[in-house]
Amino acid sequence: MNGKTDTITSGSDVLIVLNRKKRWLRKVKAGEKFQCHKGYFEYDDIIGKPYGTTIVTNKSVKLTILKPIASDFLTQISHSSQIIYPKDAGLILLYGGVVPGSKVIEAGTGSGALTSILATYVAPMGHIYTYERREQAYKTATQNIKRLGLEEHITFYNKDVADGFYETEVDAVVLDLGDPWEIIPAAYNALKCGGTISIFIPTYNQIDKVSRVLHKYFCDVFAIELIEREIQIKESAIRPKTWMVGHTGFLVFGRKLSEENKKEIRED
Amino acid sequence: MNGKTDTITSGSDVLIVLNRKKRWLRKVKAGEKFQCHKGYFEYDDIIGKPYGTTIVTNKSVKLTILKPIASDFLTQISHSSQIIYPKDAGLILLYGGVVPGSKVIEAGTGSGALTSILATYVAPMGHIYTYERREQAYKTATQNIKRLGLEEHITFYNKDVADGFYETEVDAVVLDLGDPWEIIPAAYNALKCGGTISIFIPTYNQIDKVSRVLHKYFCDVFAIELIEREIQIKESAIRPKTWMVGHTGFLVFGRKLSEENKKEIRED
Amino acid sequence: MNGKTDTITSGSDVLIVLNRKKRWLRKVKAGEKFQCHKGYFEYDDIIGKPYGTTIVTNKSVKLTILKPIASDFLTQISHSSQIIYPKDAGLILLYGGVVPGSKVIEAGTGSGALTSILATYVAPMGHIYTYERREQAYKTATQNIKRLGLEEHITFYNKDVADGFYETEVDAVVLDLGDPWEIIPAAYNALKCGGTISIFIPTYNQIDKVSRVLHKYFCDVFAIELIEREIQIKESAIRPKTWMVGHTGFLVFGRKLSEENKKEIRED
Amino acid sequence: MNGKTDTITSGSDVLIVLNRKKRWLRKVKAGEKFQCHKGYFEYDDIIGKPYGTTIVTNKSVKLTILKPIASDFLTQISHSSQIIYPKDAGLILLYGGVVPGSKVIEAGTGSGALTSILATYVAPMGHIYTYERREQAYKTATQNIKRLGLEEHITFYNKDVADGFYETEVDAVVLDLGDPWEIIPAAYNALKCGGTISIFIPTYNQIDKVSRVLHKYFCDVFAIELIEREIQIKESAIRPKTWMVGHTGFLVFGRKLSEENKKEIRED
Repeated sequence: MNGKTDTITSGSDVLIVLNRKKRWLRKVKAGEKFQCHKGYFEYDDIIGKPYGTTIVTNKSVKLTILKPIASDFLTQISHSSQIIYPKDAGLILLYGGVVPGSKVIEAGTGSGALTSILATYVAPMGHIYTYERREQAYKTATQNIKRLGLEEHITFYNKDVADGFYETEVDAVVLDLGDPWEIIPAAYNALKCGGTISIFIPTYNQIDKVSRVLHKYFCDVFAIELIEREIQIKESAIRPKTWMVGHTGFLVFGRKLSEENKKEIRED
Repeated sequence: MNGKTDTITSGSDVLIVLNRKKRWLRKVKAGEKFQCHKGYFEYDDIIGKPYGTTIVTNKSVKLTILKPIASDFLTQISHSSQIIYPKDAGLILLYGGVVPGSKVIEAGTGSGALTSILATYVAPMGHIYTYERREQAYKTATQNIKRLGLEEHITFYNKDVADGFYETEVDAVVLDLGDPWEIIPAAYNALKCGGTISIFIPTYNQIDKVSRVLHKYFCDVFAIELIEREIQIKESAIRPKTWMVGHTGFLVFGRKLSEENKKEIRED
Repeated sequence: MNGKTDTITSGSDVLIVLNRKKRWLRKVKAGEKFQCHKGYFEYDDIIGKPYGTTIVTNKSVKLTILKPIASDFLTQISHSSQIIYPKDAGLILLYGGVVPGSKVIEAGTGSGALTSILATYVAPMGHIYTYERREQAYKTATQNIKRLGLEEHITFYNKDVADGFYETEVDAVVLDLGDPWEIIPAAYNALKCGGTISIFIPTYNQIDKVSRVLHKYFCDVFAIELIEREIQIKESAIRPKTWMVGHTGFLVFGRKLSEENKKEIRED
Repeated sequence: MNGKTDTITSGSDVLIVLNRKKRWLRKVKAGEKFQCHKGYFEYDDIIGKPYGTTIVTNKSVKLTILKPIASDFLTQISHSSQIIYPKDAGLILLYGGVVPGSKVIEAGTGSGALTSILATYVAPMGHIYTYERREQAYKTATQNIKRLGLEEHITFYNKDVADGFYETEVDAVVLDLGDPWEIIPAAYNALKCGGTISIFIPTYNQIDKVSRVLHKYFCDVFAIELIEREIQIKESAIRPKTWMVGHTGFLVFGRKLSEENKKEIRED
């Protein structure tokens, strides 16, 4: 975060931008080339330059070199079937109460995209404990996170969460898997009193199933859908863009009931 | 964040919840009462209890005692005309690249609601520099922030930003005032290379004015509107709620162009 | 539709407008007064004037006198629990194929609001057959429709549709009741080949139940939700309005399968 | 509308449906084939069959034969740059007060898609007067409308509307062109007292320009954006579809002020 990081060096992570859709996250390597379908340029030509610099490829296409921020990692990692978008990740931070210093359980890890955001925002003192049943996803996520240098803030488990979590007294549990209603009692047990649960689910049927269980263990339960519209900002033609992502998923939040209040309800 | 904070004590900040709309942020005081239109209870009756506890007022109304999280402060502070919602604050964190350790300028402070969120997420090593022209707002915001115990992470200025900012080399600038297009050159100068700008504006006319200036100094410019729908999760009657907040504002983001690229464009 | 209707006369239906929210549908009566919380005016003072005229009450409040259109009847009638909005009624016309000359079955009648729209658009040669189980609703709807002078295009039944419809060979069936999945076979039998079904339902659970039955009898099945945002058009402050109706209901459409194709599927 | 039209005959208009996206509007011709990328079938094989019949191509792909409704014409004609969707056309009918018997001016004609809807709903006694400046669009629209057999309800002009309209005393004016603010005075003059104006425009800048002029001539002015979400109705996975059309345009409506009230305002 000091002056040195402001200039591109060999080894810098950079975001190479063609346009809003097409962009690449790369590590600068002296003596090597960046190559894409719009041509190539030599990394040497950007070393020593400040971020925000424009470079022209051999095919005369202009690219801009940016300093990546957390949401760029999210967007670049997310190629799995179930994508978490910045809008949803931001809401998990705010309504899930995930802050610097928090201890957070995540299940499942998936590609590690949301894991990287959670780790970024609990650093430097907090920690993420993330569970993934599928071995391939576990391996890919571990690699993705190492590439981002966030591994010291994360413990990875290649484990089915149906058996429960290893941790207790965590501040927040984030569920991003197909049948979260199965995990709610385990989440309750892992949370410290005052802790939160955040659940990401794509369908209404899942809201239905989640809500039937969630009310027994959590209070202040609510469900949100965030719709993100990008606005075209062309001069004299400002309007929402024609095509948009119409739906990513729903977010359901809750806060742990005290043991006493939980029991009361379960006896009903 | 250790075991002791999990139990309500005299001096604890608590969120007292009647329902999704009606809730109060209070400091527990031994020997005193909490009073609302639904009756009262003695704070002594919740001291020593865990968060997530339910208490019944003298009028037989059930209230739940929660541990406040950052977004609760946001919601409770926000009584000014221009409100920042959790959804918008979350997006500023993600697309504005505001992370633990960031140095961030905010203008204007308003009620301090967004300031409190920014301070929470740059802590413990980062810092917020916030500017407010109106003396009354400056005083209120200072008090609000002290109440939350976040003042060590924030420098307040009662100052018109038309003359520029005192800081340089900051990671991010967040503008939440009526005429942000006036401040864009000052934001450019205050940012370090690789830095971001985030602008919150309620109207399309403001997008129009902002975009004409922003492109000269910033690249990767885009504008987003987030629409938040709350889903009613009543059993067998899951549906979006009938009434909703239809619009809060638009968010425009950009990243600082290098000095060289900025000049190029200005000569056009 | 000739020159005479253009001028307000005694007996004219008029829409008296205070603002976007507050407006009244009234029949002009010579020698009488219009009275509201903003004062009164004499109907005699608007008789002979053109529509689009402004009148000032005794309390100096300006009201505008408009000629009512079909959607005004809809808005003014709709005080029942389940409201059909112009946006949804318009989509039923278009996707339900309800056009001048159509024969249409509606169940249930409710307040008669949607009935009035359907009757308006199938006139002069088409006809609406509308079924309502509840006697009180049946009576209210009949009165509402008489007030609008649309009764010649409508046959009312105070009858439970569980036993089926009296008509066959109709062009379209419109269902606006709580358990439409029960009525789908009856709708199939009443429709002529090539006919359409349009179903209005507020919850996701109802979509689920409807879709399980609908696919057996209808093809080209799809479900739509229309979200209506009003845009504030104040000068230099154009923006979506702060508060909006977030949800009215979902519309599910389908077209009758041939008898042969229906059987095929049912044998599965 | 009698029994004969219920069975597919040589000369029938049919909608041949592969799925929600891919569908063709065709005239059945005895002795000929329907051919698409999924193979062909003989029209003779569907002649005499009821609508809602399924046919299998030589490549074993199932197609369904439907009876086209008005919105199918709209969808099939709409290949021009500025598309009117059923949702927007439906709202123009309802808020524009376009009903059977109405006399309506439309400018510009475009591909004739909206013209076909307006003509369908004012039939049999009403009439559409449609203006188009560009000769090519005028010719295409004329052909499209002839194909639909709606020409008796429509008068086409290949004329720039800047000089005003030929008609007076019309019930409604619908503007769907790039600079509608130029035409507002002409629309005022063409309308009978009590008449409505409906304006379709894609950008916020156009709302701004329209609203500055519109208020001088029209009252009860409001602007609407309709957002259409298609809901995926797959069993146990009900959710809004991932991709959607995020924006088509805004609709601005107004009702003619009386001559007297118009003058009042213009003198300001």
